[in-house]
Amino acid sequence: MSVYLKDIPLIEAKSRFEQALREISLWQVLGLEVIPLDENAIGRVIGETIWAKISSPHYHASAMDGFAVQSKETLGAEPGSPKTLGKFTYLDTGDAIPEEYDAVIPIENIESLDELGEITPSIRRPFSIRIRAAVTPWSHIRPLGEDIVQTQLVLPAGQVLRPVDLGVVAASGHQSVKVTRKPRVAILPTGTELVPIGSNLKAGDILEYNSLVLAAQINVWGGTSTRFPITPDRFDDLCSTVNEAKRDHDLILLNAGSSAGAEDFTAQVVEKLGTLLIHGVAVRPGHPVIFGLIAKDPDEPGVNIKESHPLMIPIIGVPGYPVSAALTGEIFVEPIIAKWTGRRPIELPVEKAYLTRKITSPGGDDDYVRVAVGKVGNKLLAVPLSRGAGVISSLVRADGLVILSSGVQGAESGELVDVQLYCSHREIERTIFCIGSHDMTLDLLAQFLSQRDRKLASANVGSQGGLIALNNREAHLAGSHLLDPNTGVYNIPYIKRYITGIKIMVFGFVGREQGLMVRRGNPKRIIRLEDLKNPEVTFINRQRGAGTRVLLDYHLSKLGIRAGDINGYVQEEYTHLGVAAAVASGRADCGLGIPAAAQSLALDFIPLFQETYQLLIPKEFAETDLLRPLLDIINDRSFHQSVLHMPGYDVSHMGRLIAEV
Amino acid sequence: MSVYLKDIPLIEAKSRFEQALREISLWQVLGLEVIPLDENAIGRVIGETIWAKISSPHYHASAMDGFAVQSKETLGAEPGSPKTLGKFTYLDTGDAIPEEYDAVIPIENIESLDELGEITPSIRRPFSIRIRAAVTPWSHIRPLGEDIVQTQLVLPAGQVLRPVDLGVVAASGHQSVKVTRKPRVAILPTGTELVPIGSNLKAGDILEYNSLVLAAQINVWGGTSTRFPITPDRFDDLCSTVNEAKRDHDLILLNAGSSAGAEDFTAQVVEKLGTLLIHGVAVRPGHPVIFGLIAKDPDEPGVNIKESHPLMIPIIGVPGYPVSAALTGEIFVEPIIAKWTGRRPIELPVEKAYLTRKITSPGGDDDYVRVAVGKVGNKLLAVPLSRGAGVISSLVRADGLVILSSGVQGAESGELVDVQLYCSHREIERTIFCIGSHDMTLDLLAQFLSQRDRKLASANVGSQGGLIALNNREAHLAGSHLLDPNTGVYNIPYIKRYITGIKIMVFGFVGREQGLMVRRGNPKRIIRLEDLKNPEVTFINRQRGAGTRVLLDYHLSKLGIRAGDINGYVQEEYTHLGVAAAVASGRADCGLGIPAAAQSLALDFIPLFQETYQLLIPKEFAETDLLRPLLDIINDRSFHQSVLHMPGYDVSHMGRLIAEV
Repeated sequence: MSVYLKDIPLIEAKSRFEQALREISLWQVLGLEVIPLDENAIGRVIGETIWAKISSPHYHASAMDGFAVQSKETLGAEPGSPKTLGKFTYLDTGDAIPEEYDAVIPIENIESLDELGEITPSIRRPFSIRIRAAVTPWSHIRPLGEDIVQTQLVLPAGQVLRPVDLGVVAASGHQSVKVTRKPRVAILPTGTELVPIGSNLKAGDILEYNSLVLAAQINVWGGTSTRFPITPDRFDDLCSTVNEAKRDHDLILLNAGSSAGAEDFTAQVVEKLGTLLIHGVAVRPGHPVIFGLIAKDPDEPGVNIKESHPLMIPIIGVPGYPVSAALTGEIFVEPIIAKWTGRRPIELPVEKAYLTRKITSPGGDDDYVRVAVGKVGNKLLAVPLSRGAGVISSLVRADGLVILSSGVQGAESGELVDVQLYCSHREIERTIFCIGSHDMTLDLLAQFLSQRDRKLASANVGSQGGLIALNNREAHLAGSHLLDPNTGVYNIPYIKRYITGIKIMVFGFVGREQGLMVRRGNPKRIIRLEDLKNPEVTFINRQRGAGTRVLLDYHLSKLGIRAGDINGYVQEEYTHLGVAAAVASGRADCGLGIPAAAQSLALDFIPLFQETYQLLIPKEFAETDLLRPLLDIINDRSFHQSVLHMPGYDVSHMGRLIAEV
Repeated sequence: MSVYLKDIPLIEAKSRFEQALREISLWQVLGLEVIPLDENAIGRVIGETIWAKISSPHYHASAMDGFAVQSKETLGAEPGSPKTLGKFTYLDTGDAIPEEYDAVIPIENIESLDELGEITPSIRRPFSIRIRAAVTPWSHIRPLGEDIVQTQLVLPAGQVLRPVDLGVVAASGHQSVKVTRKPRVAILPTGTELVPIGSNLKAGDILEYNSLVLAAQINVWGGTSTRFPITPDRFDDLCSTVNEAKRDHDLILLNAGSSAGAEDFTAQVVEKLGTLLIHGVAVRPGHPVIFGLIAKDPDEPGVNIKESHPLMIPIIGVPGYPVSAALTGEIFVEPIIAKWTGRRPIELPVEKAYLTRKITSPGGDDDYVRVAVGKVGNKLLAVPLSRGAGVISSLVRADGLVILSSGVQGAESGELVDVQLYCSHREIERTIFCIGSHDMTLDLLAQFLSQRDRKLASANVGSQGGLIALNNREAHLAGSHLLDPNTGVYNIPYIKRYITGIKIMVFGFVGREQGLMVRRGNPKRIIRLEDLKNPEVTFINRQRGAGTRVLLDYHLSKLGIRAGDINGYVQEEYTHLGVAAAVASGRADCGLGIPAAAQSLALDFIPLFQETYQLLIPKEFAETDLLRPLLDIINDRSFHQSVLHMPGYDVSHMGRLIAEV
């Protein structure tokens, strides 16, 4: 079947494309331009090695405020036997040394013999001065060329200009700088289903924001970009847009239509207007990438300031899923911009971290897995985030990438893996890993923490998952609301059961209502848990191990209702908002959850139970600098007030130490 | 005497200034502004926490190209027992799932029953389809809210926007973003001796480029800057410039005049127009810093978008030396910009490194020492660079800072110190440490190396210094031209004497002439070494341990000339260009050196001797990836050609392995 793309290995794809660019002389700096030496030069890449046109200083300069003297006249001056000088002149720092002098005595080492008895800023012209120490020739003089000697290397080509570099370039006699010109990239969003941001949305409309991300990436990497309006998926329209874009640009990004769907025309467009080099790369996410070359009009005025005017320009078909699009930028576009601007490609720092969850990978693909990174105790941990190519929030939340190369079939939980870091060590050391049950107040807590220089990275794996993470020393804290059916006590019996060898402090957080979320107006007239047995009612459940699931199962068993009696019992969501979204969208009629989630999506809420949600923090972490702001916040009335703005919460135990287990 | 500034400790100065800003409500975000969500938002700081206005996807979307089906109709389909479906509809990836369906079967898992026998991109409307596996509800559907659920936290305030963040903000329903406004900084260069870059220079003129560096720093840190024209050192002019700058700006930087010289008016100006808070901070370089507050005109329209319109704005008197000015920016200005824009202040990563040379520090001052950083073998080394506050090239060459706090009186050679790094680990791992004798071809080598992704950091300590560095394992290679007077052999006898336990490979580099550099026209008619005895002739020497010094001493002793017979024998320079500059400036009449140095500064050259300059490389380093490009270059004819463009060089042995010692 011809619908399948033929994926070639990533390394081969990159080298084939690079080879093609080399053949048309486009795998080098595109051109140079002279720009004024001002703050706009920052970030530009030096195009030609800079040599000093003048020395700095360009004359012998006084290094101090003081008196220029002849050093030989100072011979013999000693603390006990001062010497009086008649030949001298006052100099400010930076003044040129007059020819007749060869040393400077700082003003503070001088005694005046004038009637005023001292040298003050206003009296710089004494008749004579007295010194109590001899000076050697060239004392306190900055000789010509001390900093930079004319003709020496100042900065090599390829260096990215930083603020201090401007100073040294100016000091060496330049008032402009030759830099590499910025590559011009055309970004062409294509798709009949795309709508611009700000549009009123209907089902099936896809917000077009990949061009925003790509344009921003290109700017950050040193190019300039033109974002074209959305072109619908019509072959002729696509051809004419590409024909328009190929003027005045060095690279075209066509996003998307690079797959093999009914309306994916990119490959055909490239074949029609030039040469299709590659269709499909074995990389995840992002495999339906296209590389090609587009023929330029022979009569078009040269856009490349080069001797050999290229008659082709490269085009990349960028996949449509946002994570794929952004990674295509990082993997394929950034190295081209680097080459064209003459700088070194970006390399992320690499650290070893322990994987907290198994990753499966099909093998055969280079698999780019986004991970959150945190340091729990002394261990650097990598938590795999959602793998979906549509989940752009996973890229935003990612602190790094784990790349499983094509030979590898996944990685085990606990395995030490290389992580390419997006963030700094300092940022990682400020990250609080909160793994466990989800509550919407955690978002609020994250917001408060960010104002106190902490990042809350929360993974929602349910209360039991949180206990396991604590026991594995993979979290700084866990949110938990596990009701023990035998004792009616929350969490503590579970801590005793699941956690060994770690002292856990249990802090009060929120009391909250749990109940059934239903669509506005409650069309299915659901009022009790027993209504879940109604075959007309579809339920959406929480995942196994979630406190809400435990609560549900506890009450179902009290009522004698079996799982098999409930439509949708096997459908699981991982968060309250996920359940609420399932109800709001009509995917289910009801789900058990908290009123804040219902309110967020304008659902009705039928309160059923009251429960206790607590924060479990290993004692060793509770007393660290990292967590101190968190404990401060949960004891802070302004945070309590913010929580109370959401419905169904009780903060009367918030911040209180309930138990040490 | 009132000329002394009163230096207060750095930490106290910072906290006093911060306190003063707090008192006038200027130690917080200055204001917020709404900007469009486009690539110009990159680098801006989010001003208000962003919550999701819509879910993403905002409808149930097909995750694949395929057929929407009712999952219950697929029950029973198995590889050996296919099932034919009559109710389905084709969907492209991203299409909304019609209400009547609850699962998607990817096109590749479908068999068509049409006459064509297969599903092709052009045939999407078969009459019936056949499947060989059942699907569960919600298979291959991206449910509403899979990525982002309406009302959830998207990004917290204080985060600096990155390219992928634009995607998630757009996906959550925003088309603009509320960011903190950029602080407006006025930069006022002051000084009668200052001239703009590009001016024709005469002795005493100082190129004004600090404003460039400060403006660039402020832009990089997230502010905007106005560079004012140079104001001469006249009290009234300074007052009126400050009065002009205080409109429309949030901070004034007055550079310089912050010391206590005859024309240093900054303190007086601040006292006249506002309040002088601090004059002098115990930090090196940079101690004559001034902090103050300037009263604004009460009738000026508010420039701060805040309820409490501030009636004062801060002013900083920035010291004039370029290193001091740049460090004042880093130490004092950056934290203010961070606070005003609501982001975390920049913190450089810190690493431990071994100091290669003793640093003396007066104590009482926080001492910022610039260092080059390299990794030799497995040891991270920090090489102190020139300490002079006027030597901006030291800041450009610096890979990091060693901060000796005020309680510390210097640090010993070999001591493990904390280095705040300006560069990444990768960059350090690409740095080749070349410590030893100076030759101008090393600059050329540095240029060639930078094109092959290596940085040559050379410290010029003379040939013997290089041998000692190799022996201490503090250099990857050394340039050396040490003549053994007994054997007439270069370097090898010295290697045997100085280096133990390391195998050294000696590579041919250049043969070069040594001779006397004299001013154009040779006014003192110097033609032989014996002329150095002439009392009318002043000589400039190289430092002890330099090969050129060894050569000089060898020939002087052959001629029976004593050091005491030579004017200026005790004056030392560390490089050939330094000697040439001393002659060019008239500080000396002649010096021994190489023709390239003479040519650079348009001096005449009297050839005296021919000598051999070699590269000494420990065998363990010669065979590393790090050094391979260097060995390639010295065997590359294009490098040989470049060297031959300089006078007095012979490359006939370049790149050849001369010996292993």
